[in-house]
Amino acid sequence: MEDLNKLKENESANIEKQGEEDETDPESNELHQPLLKRNRTISSSTLAIVGTKVSHIESLDYEINENDLFKQDWRSRSKVEVLQYVFLKWLFAFLVGLLTGLIATLINLAVENIAGYKLLAVAKYIEQKRYIMGLVYVSGVNLLLTLVATVLCVFFAPTAAGPGIPEIKAYLNGVDTPNMFGATTLIVKIIGSIGAVAAGLDLGKEGPLVHIGTCIASLLGQGGPDNYRIKWRWLRYFNNDRDRRDLITCGSSAGVCAAFRSPVGGVLFAFEEVATWWRSALLWRTFFSTAVVVVVLRAFMEYCKSGNCGLFGQGGLIMFDVSGVSITYHVVDIIPVVVIGVIGGVLGSLYNHILHKILKVYNVINAKGKLHKILLSLSVSIFTSICMYGLPFLAKCQPCDSSIQDSSCPTTGRSGNYKQFNCPNGHYNDLATLLLTTNDDAVRNIFSINTPNEFHISSLAIFFAIYCVLGLITFGIAVPSGLFLPIILMGSAYGRMLGIAMGPYTKTDQGLYAVLGAASLMAGSMRMTVSLCVIFLELTNNLLLLPITMLVLLIAKTVGDCFNPSIYEIILELKGLPFLDAHPEPWMRNITVGELTGAKSAVVTLGGIEKVGRIVEVLKNTTHNGFPVVDLEQNEVAKLHGVVLRSHLILVLKRKWFLKEKRRTEEWEVREKFSSIDLAERGGKIEELTMTKDDMEMFVDLHSLTNTTPHTVVENMSLAKAMVLFRQVGLRHMLVLPRYTSIGAPPVVGILTRQDLRAHNILSAFPQLDKSTGSKKGH
Amino acid sequence: MEDLNKLKENESANIEKQGEEDETDPESNELHQPLLKRNRTISSSTLAIVGTKVSHIESLDYEINENDLFKQDWRSRSKVEVLQYVFLKWLFAFLVGLLTGLIATLINLAVENIAGYKLLAVAKYIEQKRYIMGLVYVSGVNLLLTLVATVLCVFFAPTAAGPGIPEIKAYLNGVDTPNMFGATTLIVKIIGSIGAVAAGLDLGKEGPLVHIGTCIASLLGQGGPDNYRIKWRWLRYFNNDRDRRDLITCGSSAGVCAAFRSPVGGVLFAFEEVATWWRSALLWRTFFSTAVVVVVLRAFMEYCKSGNCGLFGQGGLIMFDVSGVSITYHVVDIIPVVVIGVIGGVLGSLYNHILHKILKVYNVINAKGKLHKILLSLSVSIFTSICMYGLPFLAKCQPCDSSIQDSSCPTTGRSGNYKQFNCPNGHYNDLATLLLTTNDDAVRNIFSINTPNEFHISSLAIFFAIYCVLGLITFGIAVPSGLFLPIILMGSAYGRMLGIAMGPYTKTDQGLYAVLGAASLMAGSMRMTVSLCVIFLELTNNLLLLPITMLVLLIAKTVGDCFNPSIYEIILELKGLPFLDAHPEPWMRNITVGELTGAKSAVVTLGGIEKVGRIVEVLKNTTHNGFPVVDLEQNEVAKLHGVVLRSHLILVLKRKWFLKEKRRTEEWEVREKFSSIDLAERGGKIEELTMTKDDMEMFVDLHSLTNTTPHTVVENMSLAKAMVLFRQVGLRHMLVLPRYTSIGAPPVVGILTRQDLRAHNILSAFPQLDKSTGSKKGH
Repeated sequence: MEDLNKLKENESANIEKQGEEDETDPESNELHQPLLKRNRTISSSTLAIVGTKVSHIESLDYEINENDLFKQDWRSRSKVEVLQYVFLKWLFAFLVGLLTGLIATLINLAVENIAGYKLLAVAKYIEQKRYIMGLVYVSGVNLLLTLVATVLCVFFAPTAAGPGIPEIKAYLNGVDTPNMFGATTLIVKIIGSIGAVAAGLDLGKEGPLVHIGTCIASLLGQGGPDNYRIKWRWLRYFNNDRDRRDLITCGSSAGVCAAFRSPVGGVLFAFEEVATWWRSALLWRTFFSTAVVVVVLRAFMEYCKSGNCGLFGQGGLIMFDVSGVSITYHVVDIIPVVVIGVIGGVLGSLYNHILHKILKVYNVINAKGKLHKILLSLSVSIFTSICMYGLPFLAKCQPCDSSIQDSSCPTTGRSGNYKQFNCPNGHYNDLATLLLTTNDDAVRNIFSINTPNEFHISSLAIFFAIYCVLGLITFGIAVPSGLFLPIILMGSAYGRMLGIAMGPYTKTDQGLYAVLGAASLMAGSMRMTVSLCVIFLELTNNLLLLPITMLVLLIAKTVGDCFNPSIYEIILELKGLPFLDAHPEPWMRNITVGELTGAKSAVVTLGGIEKVGRIVEVLKNTTHNGFPVVDLEQNEVAKLHGVVLRSHLILVLKRKWFLKEKRRTEEWEVREKFSSIDLAERGGKIEELTMTKDDMEMFVDLHSLTNTTPHTVVENMSLAKAMVLFRQVGLRHMLVLPRYTSIGAPPVVGILTRQDLRAHNILSAFPQLDKSTGSKKGH
Repeated sequence: MEDLNKLKENESANIEKQGEEDETDPESNELHQPLLKRNRTISSSTLAIVGTKVSHIESLDYEINENDLFKQDWRSRSKVEVLQYVFLKWLFAFLVGLLTGLIATLINLAVENIAGYKLLAVAKYIEQKRYIMGLVYVSGVNLLLTLVATVLCVFFAPTAAGPGIPEIKAYLNGVDTPNMFGATTLIVKIIGSIGAVAAGLDLGKEGPLVHIGTCIASLLGQGGPDNYRIKWRWLRYFNNDRDRRDLITCGSSAGVCAAFRSPVGGVLFAFEEVATWWRSALLWRTFFSTAVVVVVLRAFMEYCKSGNCGLFGQGGLIMFDVSGVSITYHVVDIIPVVVIGVIGGVLGSLYNHILHKILKVYNVINAKGKLHKILLSLSVSIFTSICMYGLPFLAKCQPCDSSIQDSSCPTTGRSGNYKQFNCPNGHYNDLATLLLTTNDDAVRNIFSINTPNEFHISSLAIFFAIYCVLGLITFGIAVPSGLFLPIILMGSAYGRMLGIAMGPYTKTDQGLYAVLGAASLMAGSMRMTVSLCVIFLELTNNLLLLPITMLVLLIAKTVGDCFNPSIYEIILELKGLPFLDAHPEPWMRNITVGELTGAKSAVVTLGGIEKVGRIVEVLKNTTHNGFPVVDLEQNEVAKLHGVVLRSHLILVLKRKWFLKEKRRTEEWEVREKFSSIDLAERGGKIEELTMTKDDMEMFVDLHSLTNTTPHTVVENMSLAKAMVLFRQVGLRHMLVLPRYTSIGAPPVVGILTRQDLRAHNILSAFPQLDKSTGSKKGH
């Protein structure tokens, strides 16, 4: 917390100083003078708030660490090993798909059965007119289910709360959030998700399924949970951040596919929203994973058709199928489509804005302790239960349409489109159809086609209003929660209302309006286009809807982008994850990396053959994770050898691979002591090591452990370009080289990391940068 | 050609030397000795064979050239200008979609009408039993149409021949093929495509449509054809290679979408197959373009339904709609699906292999002159006409199935599924149904569902055999030709044959087998997966087909990849386009960029303030396009300033912006003389400039025209990593910096370009590299 306070102090100091700076126009200074004075220090705090806990965030090593051991390993890699590796990659892609599919099946089964029996019991109470008893029953069951979910999340896996998608996005950007992909997280996420969804809370299982997919992928790649890893030799190929990244990308597509039964949509979602790096080989493998998921889900649904799955029947996976509707467009239909798009954009950004505020308040509450977290969840659960149960009493009973077959109206079971609720026979309660049901069924009902008179506009308005409130207050509580479903429900409500309003002027079905409304709000809040479009395409199973869906999504996204960033970006910002954006800020062209490193403390370099004492001192006194290795040769000529990682230094100290005299080691000496598998392990902490005085006087030859091919930029590189490079190649450390070659000059003038490139950190050291672009806009 | 010969000499010299090299094991040498001797010279020939003409291929400048003028321009860019730019980007995306849609409409209309009237006339001759007359008529018309197409291609736009997709792929990789996107090319491509397709040649309009889309995009971006450009001020934003690249990506998606009416497939095709760089903003804009295309096509089809489009009726755009078929899978269906996939992979790679050989032979023929090209096309046309007309006589007449309505069997018109041809009433000729029709109709017929007994297996075998021959001999002739349709036809033939063979064991429709066969051969030859899958999904309009299509595509691609690269890569290789692959070769880790630049001639640098004479000399004596600018300061300290482009140097010489004395210029002096628009123009040739003797003694201050932020690597960077960097960031020049800092050392030791990073060029200088990895496999 000290660092955070210091940061704040810096900021306030900067604000005071700004008055003075206003006078000096950065344009007016001489050529070849740095635009900015190097008088401030960048405090690149690595502290971030994840799940309200302040923790150290590490970067991932996506760059290939080309040291002697790696090169040796690479050269000696036989054809058989390459085949093993390729085989394993595909096997993992298959297993990720298979397991994700099975777990999605399990969750669906559990939710449908638990919620189903609950709803059946409630229906019985209502039939007996024991309304209070019904309320007590439904609230009690929901409370219990919520309690299970929230206790698990709070005590065992805080990272399992929420959707997990922002953290996955950050991971694939190179940010290692701790405890994100463990076995505990996976189990808590599965059980918690079942509990929360079955409790009727306004949240979906879609986001959690994505997280579950990535957890499975990560566990497979490392051979099991941390403490019980399988020591299979083949697994060593996956003991690096690059292959783990690919696996996790696969997992996220499989998760989306399992959530929406949308294989192409899953791949596109991973590509458009989640992944930072993408290769076409990956496209192919993720596609394979999602294909497996679809096959599993389809087989399971085939199996359940014969009634082997308890209450899981028509419900669950198929969300809505409008393939039967014939769609004809006319020019006049463009108007409501545009209107839906605009509404979606405005409401979506408004939703993002308000959710941002509420999450801030929730962070304060959650920070007070575990009990507060649990109480918050339980209050939301009780409020939800009361609304869901109580509000339908406000709606008027409607007579069943005589054209509908007897059996389907009214229904008294757990699902079905025309719920009888408190109504006399032959009548149904349209609000109960939407509220007193599972979220999946609610979506199916509101999307239902050829039912133009089913829902009264006042019922839809109540439905919309209550889901707006619930959607905002539910998301931040400590249970696994997805954002997709609440947004779909809200969007479909106003879409259908618009459909009723447009009734006399159009032939388009109200169900389609509901679909378009849902799509528009998704685009307005999450700002995805192609993947959403494909997901909706695969959900609705009607290709003729495509052009109109595209239009809605494009308009909603454009309108939304005018107001604020996407909901995932807001959450990333809120969690303090150092996510690197694709686009550098405009003012980044006005500052060079040399100016940036100048503002930092001087770079700490190590010699090629270094004293143990100095290494220990450096490791203890700095928090850097990489150190440039520089050889000083005769005549003060300095030679850059590369970058050595902290974890490798610690490994050397741990194994006490010391030399008595200052000499170069042979390659076999290193190979005897270390394998490339050792190097892949994350090292311990320097504080845990004890060194004798004799040790401290010995030497270490760092040459063979040094990554000899670090990426570099010259000091006059503009920050904008450096940042693009950093992100495109997936770096952790970027060396800054001098422009001059002169005697005694260091071959490295600085080292940049992810934190140094974040706009917020730079602006706190160079506050005039932001202003200067602002004032220049007028020129 | 001299360079090419030299290359060959080098190669033969290398072969001779290999005997000596075998002894020295690269593993055995001392540490820190370069693995390779720097004794050879890389001859990075920029000559490439495009359309059988040897021409200089230039690279594109995708890197932002951050010189003083750009920075000034960037800083002074007002909000209004940013809005103009954004507006224009979207306007262009819209226009690309609109125009591509309209031209696709035009081509379809023209083809259907020309081919339709031709077929009607032929049908009349056959009805009158004037068979010879029919043959003469059909051959004559086809010959004439082919003649038009080929003469246009040969005399006006040689780059319009072929599909154009490989060149577009290369362009988006950074290779500037000359005359690819001009107005002449566009017009020739349109007319030529109409002629060639209407002539009944075995080629499609799909590839040409992609090329047409990109031509439109390029012409829009530069404001019209080269000689009649619109001088709209707003267009200056698009006068750079980066924005042009985005536009062309848009154009290629629009083209695919227009070809297959597949908006999502179009976007994915551009992403998976064509583009090298991709941003998510681009995803959104290409999506918009394809949406516009679909709306245009749909509107046009709606209009044509009422019979306003001549013979264009049901034919043309809808290729096949199997949405009506209900598909049920059983485990047993997996077997034929796997078989189709394997056959597709084997045949696809075989097709690639044979086509490669034939294209080499064709290159020899085409190189002989324009007349040879035309004669080749005409021979193919005559052969095609004879086969298409003659072969149906081999088939037996089949009686119409009595369950079919009278009107649809037999048909005598231009399209229709049961062609009467030479058969008595109530009978049809199944081979004529497939051959004597347009290619689109042939696809539709062979894909037709619920027609299990329509085609005899012998007819399908003949169809398959003839299309194999035609597909191989037609592709290389000098007309605009797409690869998609020939492959679809071949694939559907063996798919349907397999369907007939499987008949007793499966309930799956033969039409679906044909679809799967087509998909498998596409994947086996072109090696795309996700985009193909989506294209087939959108073509067949049946989502239930998805898992099975995925499986077929994955198997076919995997099998195909075992034998040879994709057809597009083969064509790229054949055309000699310096395409940079995504993956570096394994041996590239064993060589550093320092060794590579050591093998090249020394780097030519310019001083910050340089004599005109020296600049002229350097430009005349080298072919480089970028020169490092190095300032020599006091005490022999050298300072790297950046890289200046050849085109900017020529601009300076052209405008004679010389200084009498050696002094630094002020920024306003440069701004007075040059604008950033001037710098975007491609400069002329140094030979065209005349300098007086006085001029030669004057000076130029290059500082303000120099890109001060070039991308750099240190000399011990491995080539593999350097190549990934080069491709990821989209570079044209990469500076190599020394590891040492010592007095008098140059701050730059080399400069690498695209040609230096090509495996072929490196291996010709370091032949032992390839071998060394080979021999190391055993370790």
